[in-house]
Amino acid sequence: MTSTPSSALLPRDCRIEPTKTLIGRWDLSVLAAAFGTPLYVYDAVTLRENAQDVKAAFESLGARMSFAAKACSTIGVLRTLQQSGLDIDAVSEGEMVAAIQAGFHPEQIHLHGNCKSDRELQYAIRVGIRAIVVDGADELARLVSLARSPQHPVNVMVRMSLPLEAETHPWLQTSGTGSKFGVMVESDDETQVLGLLAENSGLRFIGLHTHLGSQITGADIYRRAACDMAQVAVRFAQHGLRSEEVSLGGGWAIAYSDGDATLSPREVANAVAEGSAGFNRVRLAVEPGRALVANAAVALYRVGAVKVRESGRIVAVDGGMGDNLRPALYGARYTAFLPNRGMEVPVGKADIVGRYCEAGDVLARDVPLPEVSVGDLICVPVSGAYQLSMANSYNLVPPPASVLVDGRDARLMTRRATISDILAREVSYSDQKLN
Amino acid sequence: MTSTPSSALLPRDCRIEPTKTLIGRWDLSVLAAAFGTPLYVYDAVTLRENAQDVKAAFESLGARMSFAAKACSTIGVLRTLQQSGLDIDAVSEGEMVAAIQAGFHPEQIHLHGNCKSDRELQYAIRVGIRAIVVDGADELARLVSLARSPQHPVNVMVRMSLPLEAETHPWLQTSGTGSKFGVMVESDDETQVLGLLAENSGLRFIGLHTHLGSQITGADIYRRAACDMAQVAVRFAQHGLRSEEVSLGGGWAIAYSDGDATLSPREVANAVAEGSAGFNRVRLAVEPGRALVANAAVALYRVGAVKVRESGRIVAVDGGMGDNLRPALYGARYTAFLPNRGMEVPVGKADIVGRYCEAGDVLARDVPLPEVSVGDLICVPVSGAYQLSMANSYNLVPPPASVLVDGRDARLMTRRATISDILAREVSYSDQKLN
Repeated sequence: MTSTPSSALLPRDCRIEPTKTLIGRWDLSVLAAAFGTPLYVYDAVTLRENAQDVKAAFESLGARMSFAAKACSTIGVLRTLQQSGLDIDAVSEGEMVAAIQAGFHPEQIHLHGNCKSDRELQYAIRVGIRAIVVDGADELARLVSLARSPQHPVNVMVRMSLPLEAETHPWLQTSGTGSKFGVMVESDDETQVLGLLAENSGLRFIGLHTHLGSQITGADIYRRAACDMAQVAVRFAQHGLRSEEVSLGGGWAIAYSDGDATLSPREVANAVAEGSAGFNRVRLAVEPGRALVANAAVALYRVGAVKVRESGRIVAVDGGMGDNLRPALYGARYTAFLPNRGMEVPVGKADIVGRYCEAGDVLARDVPLPEVSVGDLICVPVSGAYQLSMANSYNLVPPPASVLVDGRDARLMTRRATISDILAREVSYSDQKLN
Repeated sequence: MTSTPSSALLPRDCRIEPTKTLIGRWDLSVLAAAFGTPLYVYDAVTLRENAQDVKAAFESLGARMSFAAKACSTIGVLRTLQQSGLDIDAVSEGEMVAAIQAGFHPEQIHLHGNCKSDRELQYAIRVGIRAIVVDGADELARLVSLARSPQHPVNVMVRMSLPLEAETHPWLQTSGTGSKFGVMVESDDETQVLGLLAENSGLRFIGLHTHLGSQITGADIYRRAACDMAQVAVRFAQHGLRSEEVSLGGGWAIAYSDGDATLSPREVANAVAEGSAGFNRVRLAVEPGRALVANAAVALYRVGAVKVRESGRIVAVDGGMGDNLRPALYGARYTAFLPNRGMEVPVGKADIVGRYCEAGDVLARDVPLPEVSVGDLICVPVSGAYQLSMANSYNLVPPPASVLVDGRDARLMTRRATISDILAREVSYSDQKLN
């Protein structure tokens, strides 16, 4: 018995050997030495294969497929997914800028978000993105006043909130009657939205969107969402608003540890197909985030201290909640292994804790590990989603670097922050430097 | 009945009038217009008075008083606390750099942390900080190999983990037998630490430290901690290691909403005094963070959308979990009010949600508010601690600016980030710009 995770948790181009772990032709310890730790290593092969899996699953439905950039807004990752033929969802001006820098055509960008600023709406109109996904009547009213050209109408979709509640962590549930997102079906908000859309020639309605949440493990809710959205589309059509496209969002579950329940793109596609009989001349769309990037990256840390407590070993590493908030924020459970000693037999379990001054800064609990020493590398798989995009400089620790491996090549995507970087916006700091 | 919080939750120099709220002579809506939103406004008067309260409470004990910089590492705030006569705790090289930039003498800095890097230890030795607070035998062994000058020995303290568990959120409990922090009392780790300290002439032992956690509402655990630490000091003294100083950390609770349980510095000081009878020629120390800065700042947001759900109103603002992770991370509960209409009678409760694409991005729940419209300002008090220091650029939304008001003066402390700032470390972004 070794302490390594199954291949389902590892990047596709990853191989664990007795004294090293490789992604493509790159030994992780070589990358750690070259770029320092903590280090995020993305595998381009996995990104492309994940994109291919989603395309294969939804192709027969003729669906448009977009990557939800909030899962990972690193430009090198966005570019790889763009080259794999996906469109992109942005939720801010920053994500639109990043998408364009990564090579997406504005016609490939949809803008989501529950509280878009006027500046963001204006930017979206100016660069000509494919659609603004309107979140409610207030936002639509602001958009009406910004989009005043019947010659160049602004494409809009409407985000709907369905009375369906996905079984997942409450923070990850984005539908249901109390949700902050979208237009509640058959509400006063819906009536107002229908009125504003029908009246305004500066806007061109192109369809509907909904998103149920994240880490959803049951496919049936996608079937029900498709059925519900078909009814919404009929109601909009009765007001002269025909849906060319209906998006069912993303959110299907991936595994962070062996044994975690998951949903495959194929299972979601089958459920959507079953539920979409009520649509008439509608293009479906799906917008996965995590499913495209999570297993494409590993995080590498260096061990700084090992303690033996009554409760077991505690292994402290040089990263933690500053680069991976998910355990503290959602109770997410990860696994980990020693990439240079992946074949060794575990001598017991250990908690892997971060360097940040908080008790909740624990990366992974009860991980079977061989003997661990100061200076060892620790590898945390399934680190590609919602980690770097939520990284901060808590404790004034500079956020980490990220690297993209593509077979024989490895290139820096994001350079490690310096202390000067994280203090650069301090006005009194700059003042003092002038003395 | 108005919807404004009590003065205990507001900065000391804050006044709510019928159509405006002032800090010093500054109308919050003027600051929001000048600097944009979200905006963090700190009150220098509160920072100084909080420091004075702590000093008054612990003066009779002759205690050294330090600010724990991780609560707020904004340099303008650090400088104000330095000028109020406090020392400082850092937990990284970045925080040591910030402290020195803020005007602290290295002799005022203690370095904490459970996984300090060699680089951080070397920096601390080079600039000559007052003490490195060693977290365990592994770290002490690394320090021994870095501190090799008996002529210029490095001052060390030892962080102890006591078998006391404070009643607070588990993420905020930093003592107890399973804690990642410090040397467990009467453990093999303690034996090793005693051995390493006794043998090494490059190190000079000056005392002991412990920290129980955060948001602690019962004073008695400070008394018990003092008693326990006196016994540890006796044990160290038996090995020839006399404690000149014993620090009991910080962590006493402050109020985020009216009705929250709190502990005053005076109550903590009384408990410490009771428990410290066993000390002999020892200087006590306390190291509060939150208690010095939390109520010194308000966060200002602009309303972007209002929705009416069956469950009540939802008010969406232009910030959220990117600048205040605490509700999502710890279930922290805040209040809020309309600073331009603070005297108006509430028409019902509302949830104030952020702009980030997560269901957990809720700043405050069930807040009594008058009618709210798009464009209104929302003020969230008690925003001075663990908000900006944990801010991130999730959704590629640039982190906010902060301002320090000091009576008649207002000055920018941290400028608002730009999209260029948050993409500056993207290597492929820079590459593309060169094309």
